[in-house]
Amino acid sequence: MKRISIWLLGCLLSLVVVAQESGVVGLKSPCVNGNVVEIVIDAPDAHEVLLQADWATSPIAMQPIDGGRWYYSSEALLPGMYTYTLLVDGVVATDPSSPYIVRNIDRLYSYFIITGSHADNYVVCDVPHGSVTTAWYRSEQSGCHRRLTIYTPAGYETTDRSYPVLYLLHGMGGDETSWSELGRATVILDNLIASGRALPMIVVMPNGNMAQQAAPGSSSRGLEAINFRLPRTYNAEFESAFGEIVNYVDRHYRTLPQASHRAIAGLSMGGYHTHYISANYPQWFSYVGLFSPAINPRSDIDMYRNIDAKLDILRHSSLRLYWIAIGQDDFLYNEVVELRNRLNAINFPYVYRESSGGHVWENWRIYLTEFVPMLFR
Amino acid sequence: MKRISIWLLGCLLSLVVVAQESGVVGLKSPCVNGNVVEIVIDAPDAHEVLLQADWATSPIAMQPIDGGRWYYSSEALLPGMYTYTLLVDGVVATDPSSPYIVRNIDRLYSYFIITGSHADNYVVCDVPHGSVTTAWYRSEQSGCHRRLTIYTPAGYETTDRSYPVLYLLHGMGGDETSWSELGRATVILDNLIASGRALPMIVVMPNGNMAQQAAPGSSSRGLEAINFRLPRTYNAEFESAFGEIVNYVDRHYRTLPQASHRAIAGLSMGGYHTHYISANYPQWFSYVGLFSPAINPRSDIDMYRNIDAKLDILRHSSLRLYWIAIGQDDFLYNEVVELRNRLNAINFPYVYRESSGGHVWENWRIYLTEFVPMLFR
Repeated sequence: MKRISIWLLGCLLSLVVVAQESGVVGLKSPCVNGNVVEIVIDAPDAHEVLLQADWATSPIAMQPIDGGRWYYSSEALLPGMYTYTLLVDGVVATDPSSPYIVRNIDRLYSYFIITGSHADNYVVCDVPHGSVTTAWYRSEQSGCHRRLTIYTPAGYETTDRSYPVLYLLHGMGGDETSWSELGRATVILDNLIASGRALPMIVVMPNGNMAQQAAPGSSSRGLEAINFRLPRTYNAEFESAFGEIVNYVDRHYRTLPQASHRAIAGLSMGGYHTHYISANYPQWFSYVGLFSPAINPRSDIDMYRNIDAKLDILRHSSLRLYWIAIGQDDFLYNEVVELRNRLNAINFPYVYRESSGGHVWENWRIYLTEFVPMLFR
Repeated sequence: MKRISIWLLGCLLSLVVVAQESGVVGLKSPCVNGNVVEIVIDAPDAHEVLLQADWATSPIAMQPIDGGRWYYSSEALLPGMYTYTLLVDGVVATDPSSPYIVRNIDRLYSYFIITGSHADNYVVCDVPHGSVTTAWYRSEQSGCHRRLTIYTPAGYETTDRSYPVLYLLHGMGGDETSWSELGRATVILDNLIASGRALPMIVVMPNGNMAQQAAPGSSSRGLEAINFRLPRTYNAEFESAFGEIVNYVDRHYRTLPQASHRAIAGLSMGGYHTHYISANYPQWFSYVGLFSPAINPRSDIDMYRNIDAKLDILRHSSLRLYWIAIGQDDFLYNEVVELRNRLNAINFPYVYRESSGGHVWENWRIYLTEFVPMLFR
């Protein structure tokens, strides 16, 4: 009860503020106070309201409180970005009081940020901001135009200098918007660059599903159902056409077009792409990052063969960093153990980072925050 | 019953398709067939499901059908983009089966498109697409960086040519994302340009609220409550600082920096901005569009005084088109009657377009679709 009383006081103050600003009395939810989040919804006619929270393993029953409202207060949460949905009498909904949502594959989620340590990088700060562009490049191999997202750092428009480039790849079910939206990559880059922890760089986020021209809703397929697993993945089609993307970026942006100024990283399926692109084109990238990589080939084709020999060429090329990160609870953990054994057997130099947690975006945000400062030094 | 039977057949086919593609049996909702939309939600534990549809004047009770589902089928709808939300036992939700949403000020809505006539322009087609950039310009007058959205037409990156520019302004409660997202301006421009109905042009969509640096969630204010009415509007602050935006665009993009290659248009508050910017800077724009303009000044300051004399200078400058559009049911209709009387009294040349409907985005999309083809001819 004490917590509810404190919350009610805080919420009443919030209501006053919302009422003053908007002329409408509304709820403030989610309400983040330090490392606690409070969620409240106005649902006098609902019989059950469950909270599906990515910080809990099972749905949480929200508590009915006075005035037809339902209430939840968290325990102390670690710093991070959190997502949740509600189940109102069995129907999934985002928080009605918050227009701030992210899409993860085919679902929308409300979100909030508990600040502190790495999560401070997820907050939009009053620093110089880069530009974010969705552009279309011609893929001759696919016979169509395909969309990508490009971040150019603050100052790009006002100077003549050229920049290094990080290519950042999404996982299965993702698309060219995943890193910039759900991954908060552009916010993270802004903050790392503004504080001097990372060098200014261009970040290119392509669409790794060759069955798509663009993210769902942004191509001529219309408002289609979103599939987690698309055809034309794990068949080397994306990897073998990757040069089209690099050429497009080098032609249309002020890049430093040498391996020493190029990095590539990806999560899950994107880690797989990263592994095989960097091995097959050893002259292209000096910095390679595998985030929770889904590493084992699904088909037996040239690009996936003789990898040990290819990695040997890569290590004797301009490679400066090969960084592998995975969470202890990741279902791909053993795949990464196998990869490390294989790399150890050929004395391939890499840096290994093991975190807590599983195959989740919070880990990928953390890995990005750690990987980017090591680049182009 | 007959309609429900036909729907069930269609829906069963949809279920098969969704199941085949994703491996998960899910609902397809909304389901557009010709000019009819069907909405179905899975809510066995709900006691009431209402549909709040922008094509209906009051909430519609959805009908319980077999299997714990709730069903709605529309009458024949006119071509257009439509938005809706659900009320599940009193709690507002977007359609759980659709990740496709738009934000209108502080609320999220599911949407769909009924094709035909002007609405064919709202559909992403397999045509060359322009790039869309969110960039930050320095506003010396505000002492901060402010964000804008810039559309560059297909081919911009691959040619050296320079382009005319349309400045496109949002209304109260909107921001630099309103026209590109809710207004589907970038899709409309792609389609008009690809079909030769409009000339290739750059479109600049700034943030007209000087109290904001950027859209909610994209500035250092964090995930704030969104206010419909912000301070620092209707005080000439945006209008008098507009040159900063024009200068930024002319410096950083390949523009044709003459009035004959510049247009400005805006909806509601943006129509007000457009009226006063074009009148006070008569050398800047040859094409002016007022969409449902909120035209009467809220304060007595220099920029809003002596408008008749300023308009007289404007008409004798390089003005080629002054286009005013409003819906018959718009609450600002009489303001526009007054404006027209004032313009008639001074023999100011303008083109008047009266549509059906009110102060709604569907009208603004239509106006954009009609206005853009007239530019730069």
